[in-house]
Amino acid sequence: MFKATVYVTIKQSVLDVQGTAVQGALHTMGFDEVSKVRIGKYLEVELNTNDRAAAEERLKAMCEKLLANTVIEDYRFELVQA
Amino acid sequence: MFKATVYVTIKQSVLDVQGTAVQGALHTMGFDEVSKVRIGKYLEVELNTNDRAAAEERLKAMCEKLLANTVIEDYRFELVQA
Repeated sequence: MFKATVYVTIKQSVLDVQGTAVQGALHTMGFDEVSKVRIGKYLEVELNTNDRAAAEERLKAMCEKLLANTVIEDYRFELVQA
Repeated sequence: MFKATVYVTIKQSVLDVQGTAVQGALHTMGFDEVSKVRIGKYLEVELNTNDRAAAEERLKAMCEKLLANTVIEDYRFELVQA
């Protein structure tokens, strides 16, 4: 079995409205030292396979097709055998 | 300046409805090897300070007060001087 950790982040060139809103809220709360906030998704996925190459290929397909919107988001993942 | 990476995850004892929905969607798409999906948040926060201890303390306060709902979520963060 493989455990994958997937990070989906908004591309640097795309405005992160959620991050901007959170930054504004933090300033309102007195956390004035916060100069930038960007928000993404963090996924833990367990795969029932023992073939690392296959797991990587399948995970890439999942990211491209469902987990990330590649028009505005980047993704990366780490695979660990469990 | 410090760059912080914050991970907010649903506690193991709490049902992750978003993760369950994504797992169902992956199965429908033919990714039958997926046995578990859990979804959390991933935040990149930049702090205008040069005091690591202060940055850690402030970041902990931000997580407790805004970034995580500690009733159902766990959080952890990494700080790197930039």
